Amino acid sequence: MSTPEPPFDLLVRGGLLVVPGGPAGVTVVEGDVAVRDGRIVGVGDLPHRSAGRVLDATDSVVMPGLVNSHMHECLERGIFEDLPFTRWLQEFALPKDRAYEPRHQRAAALLNQLEMIRGGTTTFIDIFRHPDQAAEVAVSSGLRAVISPQVIDRPPGPGETLEANLDFVQRWQDRCPRVRPWFGPHALYSCDEETFAVMSEEAARRGLGMHTHLAESGAETAEIVERTGLRPAAYLDRLIGPGHPVLVAHGVHLDAADIDLVAARRWAVAHCPTSNMKLGNGTAPVPEMIAAGVTVGLGTDSVMTNNDLDMFEEMRLAALVQKLRLGDAEVMPVGQVIGLATTASAAAVGLGGITGSLREGAAADLIVVGLDQPHMWPVQRGELSNVAEHMVYSAHASDVRSTVVAGRILMEDRVVATIDAAEVRDLVARETADLLIKAGILRG
Amino acid sequence: MSTPEPPFDLLVRGGLLVVPGGPAGVTVVEGDVAVRDGRIVGVGDLPHRSAGRVLDATDSVVMPGLVNSHMHECLERGIFEDLPFTRWLQEFALPKDRAYEPRHQRAAALLNQLEMIRGGTTTFIDIFRHPDQAAEVAVSSGLRAVISPQVIDRPPGPGETLEANLDFVQRWQDRCPRVRPWFGPHALYSCDEETFAVMSEEAARRGLGMHTHLAESGAETAEIVERTGLRPAAYLDRLIGPGHPVLVAHGVHLDAADIDLVAARRWAVAHCPTSNMKLGNGTAPVPEMIAAGVTVGLGTDSVMTNNDLDMFEEMRLAALVQKLRLGDAEVMPVGQVIGLATTASAAAVGLGGITGSLREGAAADLIVVGLDQPHMWPVQRGELSNVAEHMVYSAHASDVRSTVVAGRILMEDRVVATIDAAEVRDLVARETADLLIKAGILRG
Repeated sequence: MSTPEPPFDLLVRGGLLVVPGGPAGVTVVEGDVAVRDGRIVGVGDLPHRSAGRVLDATDSVVMPGLVNSHMHECLERGIFEDLPFTRWLQEFALPKDRAYEPRHQRAAALLNQLEMIRGGTTTFIDIFRHPDQAAEVAVSSGLRAVISPQVIDRPPGPGETLEANLDFVQRWQDRCPRVRPWFGPHALYSCDEETFAVMSEEAARRGLGMHTHLAESGAETAEIVERTGLRPAAYLDRLIGPGHPVLVAHGVHLDAADIDLVAARRWAVAHCPTSNMKLGNGTAPVPEMIAAGVTVGLGTDSVMTNNDLDMFEEMRLAALVQKLRLGDAEVMPVGQVIGLATTASAAAVGLGGITGSLREGAAADLIVVGLDQPHMWPVQRGELSNVAEHMVYSAHASDVRSTVVAGRILMEDRVVATIDAAEVRDLVARETADLLIKAGILRG
Repeated sequence: MSTPEPPFDLLVRGGLLVVPGGPAGVTVVEGDVAVRDGRIVGVGDLPHRSAGRVLDATDSVVMPGLVNSHMHECLERGIFEDLPFTRWLQEFALPKDRAYEPRHQRAAALLNQLEMIRGGTTTFIDIFRHPDQAAEVAVSSGLRAVISPQVIDRPPGPGETLEANLDFVQRWQDRCPRVRPWFGPHALYSCDEETFAVMSEEAARRGLGMHTHLAESGAETAEIVERTGLRPAAYLDRLIGPGHPVLVAHGVHLDAADIDLVAARRWAVAHCPTSNMKLGNGTAPVPEMIAAGVTVGLGTDSVMTNNDLDMFEEMRLAALVQKLRLGDAEVMPVGQVIGLATTASAAAVGLGGITGSLREGAAADLIVVGLDQPHMWPVQRGELSNVAEHMVYSAHASDVRSTVVAGRILMEDRVVATIDAAEVRDLVARETADLLIKAGILRG
């Protein structure tokens, strides 16, 4: 490593650096991270010289910001839980989806992005409605975002059309380097074949990606097979062309041949263990996908099916659920899990090498995680280091002290600089009530 | 409800009370909790009159303190992870177990009890070595505890003998009403038959309970069947008599007939979903046990297999893992899960009606949980209340603001009154190093 030349815009000083990569999947070294012009320019034991800002990371972990590779920004946390799917859909999901207006989506984006900044997520991909709201909030929140507007043909959602997606892409393609538009055909069972085809062509032509749901539930998978004679992966493959990134969410019901196809097409998969468990959908064959060379990222899904956006919890569950599924305590070791939530998730959303790493030249998207709480003790350094282990098996969103994106400090010592939390709290209460009343779910 | 007469020692004012019980398993009402002489004397909308202390619970949840029905107080968090069992046992577990001294156990008890107070656990049952250390720390920490010294005949552990357990029981039986001794035969595969028989007689004679491990892994279950011709539950039934509480940990590999036997004998089961997943052991048939009338509590197991003592996380996982196992989003609804961690866990450790509830006459063991963080928003009151849902699907240990046991405030606004956290941090670092060096695992 060359010694970078000061001055730096930002120096993150004296942390335990949890660096994805290497034979164990992750390496822990003590040192600093120097940042200039939004990029990492030095990692390691740096001479402590002039910097515009210093973040003290003593007795703390410094790691890449986490990348949430599948979520929908929404408001409906903890409402209508534990219900049978049909009742949930008819009495809650459909009426409130129809009532969603841009004002509700703006509140949702503020709430979700505030929670992500507080939990150490620095990049997310959103697939939902009223995408301008999500994108505009991302511009001001400082998060890195990929916004793939959800397109649903059957039944049509509010503004969730192919045309709206194309319009959005046109408007946002060159608007903010941190906020990228993608294409978001919702799923094989909810979109017309033509929608997938047009989007795939447009994605290839514009150098953008496509995000969709695939093989999430057994019922959906069976329905596709019955209707088309093809399993979902093969059916998707028939509808879209090559030449652009594809990220499919869930992939719970992928068999060995499906996995080979996904690997051959270089599609990435967003693994959402909490959501898959909560809806009773099953567990994606993640170790098998990784063995086949598939890029597997990690996602929370929405606050309806999680119910938080805590990527640490998602890492922990990604480890636990595979050990359970395969009856093997050795699968999904710590290094691999950290890779899922950082490097692999970044690649899955088309930002491989740009974010999700602590390498020189990458964007300065990083977090400082405190080790000052009893659930992190003992802290072992050196040959028996348990610091990476703590990030997977003990840490929570609330342990994140500071969050940095593109060298800008979005949160320092738990205080978010770019979103007014008290304002969001009131706004969320107001807009949730308004949404539920307009949907006829709550009396005004 | 009668209006209680002031003065009160403590008034917890203006919270959202999450009260276990009722048709949905839990009821949410706004109100206060009045405490006198360590007991709850009033619950509901009380006239706000004189009280020695007031805890403000505005915009917060007040609920029974959580009861951890299976754990071992220990130090070894995050060390030697993701290893095959034999290597873990030979290179780590056995050498460090042999090296364990009372000084290490004292540090472990301080660390674990500090974490439990911070996470809203007010009662725990410990099964491990050097029980005097755990018990003495509980006396001073203020937690309610059941201490069942671990007895292991094969291979003998340090001080883990039947005689030591009997001595401990003798010394602690009437020493502190908050700290009760139990009997702790480790497991059917590690204890002699005689040990179970003697302990069962002593437990019945003294009115104490017995805590053991049962049917945790498939391998252990098969070994018992091969050696005895009986499945573990039937074998345990042959070794012990009636007349005393029995709490078995895990119960992953209980079949329908086993469950009927456990129900008939009125044994309780401590469900430890994280540990069972992490070790690849499987998922206990909890809904089936509950349907059969078995009292099922919730436990974290130790920081080696969890790796924290966060009972909120354990509640969430108890819900998620059954929805996954049964492929049914409706099983283990929120009310039932809260019941597991409070009322049922309390009954499981022999403290039914004493702790784990917000009823008049019960011990004032309660917690205040903040709703002031974005991952708890929106907060819906009234007919669409999502407050109990937030406790299961969104809350973490770090959301607990205050912890009260027997009317004494052990933590207020995240500051623990009874244990010096900074001192524990240094002690834990020192004693962990000492333990690992003495075990030959770490170079001195």
